Amino acid sequence: MQAEIITIGDEILIGQIVDTNSAFLGKAFNKIGVSIYQITSIQDDRTHILKALKEAEDNADIIIITGGLGPTKDDITKHTICEYFNDTLVENKAVLAHVEHLFSKYISTPISDLNRQQALVPSKSKVLMNRFGTAPGMWLEKNGKVFVSLPGVPYEMKALISNDVIPALRLKFEFPYIKHKTVLTYGVGESAIANRIEGWEEALPSHIKLAYLPSLGRVRLRLSGKSRDKDLLETEIEKQIDLLLPQIEDIFIGFEENGSIETLIGNQLSKLGKTLSLAESCTGGKIAQVLTANAGVSKYFKGSIVSYATESKINVLEVSKLDIKSYSVVSKEVAEAMAINVRKLFNTDYAISTTGNAGPLKGDSDAEIGTVWIALATKNEVYSQVFNFGNHRDKVIMKATNKAFEMLQKEIFKK
Amino acid sequence: MQAEIITIGDEILIGQIVDTNSAFLGKAFNKIGVSIYQITSIQDDRTHILKALKEAEDNADIIIITGGLGPTKDDITKHTICEYFNDTLVENKAVLAHVEHLFSKYISTPISDLNRQQALVPSKSKVLMNRFGTAPGMWLEKNGKVFVSLPGVPYEMKALISNDVIPALRLKFEFPYIKHKTVLTYGVGESAIANRIEGWEEALPSHIKLAYLPSLGRVRLRLSGKSRDKDLLETEIEKQIDLLLPQIEDIFIGFEENGSIETLIGNQLSKLGKTLSLAESCTGGKIAQVLTANAGVSKYFKGSIVSYATESKINVLEVSKLDIKSYSVVSKEVAEAMAINVRKLFNTDYAISTTGNAGPLKGDSDAEIGTVWIALATKNEVYSQVFNFGNHRDKVIMKATNKAFEMLQKEIFKK
Repeated sequence: MQAEIITIGDEILIGQIVDTNSAFLGKAFNKIGVSIYQITSIQDDRTHILKALKEAEDNADIIIITGGLGPTKDDITKHTICEYFNDTLVENKAVLAHVEHLFSKYISTPISDLNRQQALVPSKSKVLMNRFGTAPGMWLEKNGKVFVSLPGVPYEMKALISNDVIPALRLKFEFPYIKHKTVLTYGVGESAIANRIEGWEEALPSHIKLAYLPSLGRVRLRLSGKSRDKDLLETEIEKQIDLLLPQIEDIFIGFEENGSIETLIGNQLSKLGKTLSLAESCTGGKIAQVLTANAGVSKYFKGSIVSYATESKINVLEVSKLDIKSYSVVSKEVAEAMAINVRKLFNTDYAISTTGNAGPLKGDSDAEIGTVWIALATKNEVYSQVFNFGNHRDKVIMKATNKAFEMLQKEIFKK
Repeated sequence: MQAEIITIGDEILIGQIVDTNSAFLGKAFNKIGVSIYQITSIQDDRTHILKALKEAEDNADIIIITGGLGPTKDDITKHTICEYFNDTLVENKAVLAHVEHLFSKYISTPISDLNRQQALVPSKSKVLMNRFGTAPGMWLEKNGKVFVSLPGVPYEMKALISNDVIPALRLKFEFPYIKHKTVLTYGVGESAIANRIEGWEEALPSHIKLAYLPSLGRVRLRLSGKSRDKDLLETEIEKQIDLLLPQIEDIFIGFEENGSIETLIGNQLSKLGKTLSLAESCTGGKIAQVLTANAGVSKYFKGSIVSYATESKINVLEVSKLDIKSYSVVSKEVAEAMAINVRKLFNTDYAISTTGNAGPLKGDSDAEIGTVWIALATKNEVYSQVFNFGNHRDKVIMKATNKAFEMLQKEIFKK
């Protein structure tokens, strides 16, 4: 069973936006055992859309179309799909009510006819309600093949895929059972891990595949199997995991299927009834932002001080001026003082601090670009480590954020 | 003149990586007046590669192929292109010397025959030397059409495009002049803007196109024109902008070509010699993170207090307990107190605060999900506004962040 993705929008072709939808769709379909035959990105052009639909119908069983569903003139996907299906547009009452509700509740400008036209859908289509926006998803079928047209806005598309499209596909088709189990590791590179587990990898049965997924100082090891016999496959994968874990005990974080490292940390802090605060310099709020991207963290996360300027470290975090002068602002001493002081200020069990040089230019410190000190304070002690995360600003910030979580994970899970 | 991009690699189709190369290529070609007809992503599969090459040759004048040039078995792009051109592979001495040099200088493992085979190129191809890797770029021609095969590693591909491919294309073809001008607006939706500027839009000359690019409470209006007469086109676009701006004065931020709103704000604060601090509750560090994603902000950005838990608003930001009890933590009074207090704490000219309910569950407040108060404090005054940003957590956080920048922009640019 194969799928094709068609993404529509001039903004993709002129490079104004990066198409992240396709990677999400690739992953989502991979999980249910459907491979993507082709991803085709085209402009908002009637002839080209019709051609792409025809070719996709020839090649794939499931055709996912994203984009071009906005209310303005340049968005022609809906009309063109309607034409492809020899169909006419009809007003869907539920969508109209939803659009009117969104306008009355969230939007200050009055609703217009253009907005109301979002409720027009091909008469043969099954509507997929879009909780997060005005353009509905549309499900159409032709010669046993499924066409789904979705809005291009990533979070709207993602919700529709996860909540509506995948469940409906599961009802319509019978997919083989696919099992992924992904081991999260940190601190050791891809090829070093490959060397370490070479014997195990070579002895894997042929229907279980291993993929190395390296990213910013972490490597995910994904075991994947496909089978009609669910129980047998699960047992086999568990057996392989049991053989693997003793070889990577020192770098093992957990299983991705149980949640990200932030989730694992949050669950553990909640379980222990412990709290956390942060003092961020070079990470500039990134650690707080990653934590608070998840709901429900206020149980254990009390807050952060982003002391971006050196004077803020002195005035707000009460780091000693003399320490900054003697050791420089990127130093063990300053990192540890930041962690100790912020822990007291927020009255938490743990505190983490970062101070470093993310580049591209040296800031208030002479430390080499990429240098980051990370400190962790508990009620009884404080300790710190120094890293060099290279010379790419975003990467330095993200790697420091990852490393901060790893230090905390080690601390709160230690026996 | 049109180009097609073919990206080859299983990792794209299964969603393991996001294809950022295509957006870079789209931008690069757009700049020289070549529009991208289609982006086609396919697996490392011989038949499919041959089919994609044939279709691209039918549709486009320039075909850019990325990926599948690695040394391992799954990389078959080079052999397949060679087959498509009825050509044979020959060893290129310069590439071989380069590969051997890279190995002796940077790579600890000894060079293998697989690595040496990177020097095999189709005999009809012109080699483009890859400074940053072992796989060379290859330029081939057929019936006046240009095929360029490039490595998929983004920084290798980008260097080859900028240093070799674009200059060579400029020598071979004469390109029209392309001009984009993108108007940044906020606060009014896509269709409301469309209604407002309908008359202007309909009177646009046919060779100037308008696109609406909406995202989280902001809409970008992009005017694009293509012409052989550079001066005339620029004059025409400026004339259209002059007609447009009076109609959208109240929602106009600036031109994207001059930088993002954060950049505009940063430049203005630097120019005025003014400073900024933040007190973030529901945005959880996002505003600080967006600011500090850019280098050099410490000139005007002093820091942020992420007072995520209610007790941190009391203990760290010294918001009155009574106010929180009387008005609730999501209120005008608390937002304004946060802004006033953080401004004093960091001793800045401006301070912004956010307090709200990002959902999905109600937290320390009974305020409806999506409700966010944003306050702005200056040395002389404080004011605030309340918004409802809907029921999607990420969206609420991002819209509140955007709105905070908009309020600041209005404040610092006001006459």
